[in-house]
Amino acid sequence: MRWWGWGDPDHGSTLPEHAVEFLRAEVGIAESPRPPVDLEQVRLGDPELSGNARARLASVVGADNVRDDRLTRVLHAAGKSYPDLVRQRAGDCETAPDAVVLPGGPEEVLAVLEACAAARVAVVPFGGGTSVVGGVEPLRDGFAAVIALDLGRLDRMVGIDEASLTARLEAGLRGPEAEAQLAARGFTLGHFPQSFEYVTIGGCVATRSAGQASTGYGRIDELVLGLRCAAPVGEIDLRPLPASAAGPELRELLVGSEGTLGVITQAALKVRPAPEARRYEGWFFRDFATGADAFRTLEQHEAAPDVARLSDDEETRLSLALSGGEGLKARAGAAYLRLRGYQGGCLAIFGWEGDADDVDRRAARTGVLARRAGGLSLGRSPGEAWAAGRFAGPYLRDDMLGLGVMVETLETATQWSGLMDLHAAVGEALREALAARGTPPRVTCHVSHLYPSGASLYFTFLARQEEGAEIEQWRAAKRAASDAIVAQGATITHHHAIGRDHVPWMEAEVGRLGLAALRAVKHELDPVGIMNPGKLLPPGTSPGA
Amino acid sequence: MRWWGWGDPDHGSTLPEHAVEFLRAEVGIAESPRPPVDLEQVRLGDPELSGNARARLASVVGADNVRDDRLTRVLHAAGKSYPDLVRQRAGDCETAPDAVVLPGGPEEVLAVLEACAAARVAVVPFGGGTSVVGGVEPLRDGFAAVIALDLGRLDRMVGIDEASLTARLEAGLRGPEAEAQLAARGFTLGHFPQSFEYVTIGGCVATRSAGQASTGYGRIDELVLGLRCAAPVGEIDLRPLPASAAGPELRELLVGSEGTLGVITQAALKVRPAPEARRYEGWFFRDFATGADAFRTLEQHEAAPDVARLSDDEETRLSLALSGGEGLKARAGAAYLRLRGYQGGCLAIFGWEGDADDVDRRAARTGVLARRAGGLSLGRSPGEAWAAGRFAGPYLRDDMLGLGVMVETLETATQWSGLMDLHAAVGEALREALAARGTPPRVTCHVSHLYPSGASLYFTFLARQEEGAEIEQWRAAKRAASDAIVAQGATITHHHAIGRDHVPWMEAEVGRLGLAALRAVKHELDPVGIMNPGKLLPPGTSPGA
Repeated sequence: MRWWGWGDPDHGSTLPEHAVEFLRAEVGIAESPRPPVDLEQVRLGDPELSGNARARLASVVGADNVRDDRLTRVLHAAGKSYPDLVRQRAGDCETAPDAVVLPGGPEEVLAVLEACAAARVAVVPFGGGTSVVGGVEPLRDGFAAVIALDLGRLDRMVGIDEASLTARLEAGLRGPEAEAQLAARGFTLGHFPQSFEYVTIGGCVATRSAGQASTGYGRIDELVLGLRCAAPVGEIDLRPLPASAAGPELRELLVGSEGTLGVITQAALKVRPAPEARRYEGWFFRDFATGADAFRTLEQHEAAPDVARLSDDEETRLSLALSGGEGLKARAGAAYLRLRGYQGGCLAIFGWEGDADDVDRRAARTGVLARRAGGLSLGRSPGEAWAAGRFAGPYLRDDMLGLGVMVETLETATQWSGLMDLHAAVGEALREALAARGTPPRVTCHVSHLYPSGASLYFTFLARQEEGAEIEQWRAAKRAASDAIVAQGATITHHHAIGRDHVPWMEAEVGRLGLAALRAVKHELDPVGIMNPGKLLPPGTSPGA
Repeated sequence: MRWWGWGDPDHGSTLPEHAVEFLRAEVGIAESPRPPVDLEQVRLGDPELSGNARARLASVVGADNVRDDRLTRVLHAAGKSYPDLVRQRAGDCETAPDAVVLPGGPEEVLAVLEACAAARVAVVPFGGGTSVVGGVEPLRDGFAAVIALDLGRLDRMVGIDEASLTARLEAGLRGPEAEAQLAARGFTLGHFPQSFEYVTIGGCVATRSAGQASTGYGRIDELVLGLRCAAPVGEIDLRPLPASAAGPELRELLVGSEGTLGVITQAALKVRPAPEARRYEGWFFRDFATGADAFRTLEQHEAAPDVARLSDDEETRLSLALSGGEGLKARAGAAYLRLRGYQGGCLAIFGWEGDADDVDRRAARTGVLARRAGGLSLGRSPGEAWAAGRFAGPYLRDDMLGLGVMVETLETATQWSGLMDLHAAVGEALREALAARGTPPRVTCHVSHLYPSGASLYFTFLARQEEGAEIEQWRAAKRAASDAIVAQGATITHHHAIGRDHVPWMEAEVGRLGLAALRAVKHELDPVGIMNPGKLLPPGTSPGA
């Protein structure tokens, strides 16, 4: 993974010249390229871990697995949020962890946490390091030192119960390796966030993630049947159960706990037979409201595809303009649309996965209802173009940062009855906040996860970077959008999690007493407060705050 | 509601003479009938509520809504578990609450809890009073007095968001009234526990209940989108959201909290369009394992009906023998089965609800897979007989108690791979425990809720009552079955909840640290510990224990 951005360090630029020109015209770009600094120029603090603490950790995991070389520390200094990348590219890794510790199994994780609690060392659980909300920022919070606890060595499929469609996976197993191991047995987890190539199972569970096909397969919280979580005071081991009425659901307290209660070391997850067929299609709707209403109808009639995305007019326009080879095909589609009398309009992607018969049967049923609701089929080619590029977004972001273009995403969810107001309010808030700084943005949005009662909205916004004030610019936009989300009664995050960036809106999300309840649990499991400080919970006066 | 049993006081006996003879032959009955005592003979303690506390409560809810007349106290002295009914029928209501308080809205509930915390009065939230696990037993736990907080006046549908398929209902609304109000708007909640006629919305949410059609509609925890919960220190108000990644899921901490954290006053619930068609069918399988495997196939191929029940051989035999008029039809079916070469075998009920087209389409798909898996259709008449009697079980129990027959149910769930072992182990434990006391039982079981990873088992057992030692006899059976469930790694309860009766197995369910986390939340929301003492959480040494 690039320490200053996303993915394979050898991956080249993905922005064709026409896209650069488009960005220059739409939002403006920097006068000269803005590449990241060299690794050697990165500013790192001296490691603060005491010799005693280091020796105790080495005695648990082995000396080779306590690391503090430059590259390892830099790679664990941040996640992949926009402000993370701005800082990393500028060479600011002052807050890098003092060491990176790699335990070899659940028992070693427990022993590491015990050692850190005793030595008052903060612990940041680190999976794929893909957080876009500051979830792995190594905050010290008054502690002597901070380590990143890298789960990379917990990378096994522990077992699979085929009759019960349940696989037990270790937390550090990455998305592609998990899918490969499941595929070898004929199964899939079906969990494909855009960060799929780098995410870990534990990271997904800890951040309550959703994937691109979660309308069909379910969010990660719907897939977790059991889990093991190591806390500083001991382990919680919840065996897989299909359902229970034995009190509050503790799984749901640990899923989404973002490393603040403990470290998820294993999860027993619902799997499905690997699909024998996949079918992706492009569809078109006259406008966003018509498309969203069609999506609602599909979902409420149990006819939604497994992948269901509806871009608003602006996202449709920008993605057609920015895409390269695939864009040409799409533009051919646009000509067809003009012939049919569509001006502007909204592109949708539908995807079905499963037995070949099932896929055809379900696609036919979706098609009938979608047509009746005003949809126009564009056939498979736009769908296949989307599928081919489904994990490419983060690479594109690196390229834009190199041009001096701010690109950030945020997401929320609400009930169907409030979806159009939410769309308007967040877009307006972003446009106002950034126009006020002299960097008017382009704001795009898609509906991407459907539920009977509502859906999520995923916003992307682009603006020329304010050189020298990138973080302030970002913070203004983030604050405006988040305040608008809260004012609409929507959730502050549908799948990116709280991390550090959403903490100011957490009280609006769960209320004062909700926070008190979460703090009480944290104090019980992590009385010293070493677990991922500064994330999820705002500072407070309750025990454990 | 009968104070000594179930339902309408004017409801007559439902056991025909042939059924009485069958029970006499199978397990034995008492030499003479064992009717309940008269209300006047019931032993009640003197009300212990202090004048000050009573006056303060009256100032909150009005004097008419603080009641301590004999019938009201007796009706709130217990739920409807087997040991509850044994005690009530014998006139033992010594532990009746000192008063019954009926608040008129969420704010009054908050004020009542504040008053009770100040006066150190224990509070037992009381919905329909249908708990079969001691969930509403008015335990004092060292407090000066105990009140039942009856939610009966919170009986409104607050509103409905039709586009989002979400209804906000007050906690005290009963099942039939909730369905009637929803039906007037064209919707259904689809939540039909056997106790449907008396349950309240709040009671279902607080006990994480499942209904007879939950395979299709989802358990109550899958229907709760938001809720309001009044705790002694204040209110938690979680607005309805389709999904969120904003940390741990607090809804899942309050759902199933059984009145130990606070009182659920409102819930925003997922509803569906009222079904235009309902179709119930009887099916037959050669043996329980074949039937269970067919059920697994249906569920894992998303072809399960909304209602799916599979009786084991013994339940099939007993229900055919005990049923009256419907039984005749079923026996005609039995003759047909003998002709087809089935000896013994297992009766299944399938039910589909929805649009007429959908119902036919889904029933056809279920049928194809069920036949392929060894099922034989018996047509609609056994299904309709089941549907007609679906809420009759509790009446039957009263009749059996009058004959001196112990009848008790318990339920659990586990992964598919362990289902047959669980079935054998629980049956064996019950047979051994009761045979050892000289009262060999009949143990019957059905599979009743399907999930991709597993299913629930619902056991019913009958034995001659040990006169004078009814509770000890019950306790021996309960302990044996519960120990067997825990040993199999199954859940101690799939839909009856923990209440008082399952408390000894709660640590096996969630572990020592899981209990500590729940106690920490309780201590935060209910620092004085007045909320439903003795339920859900075993006594412990942590804060709040």
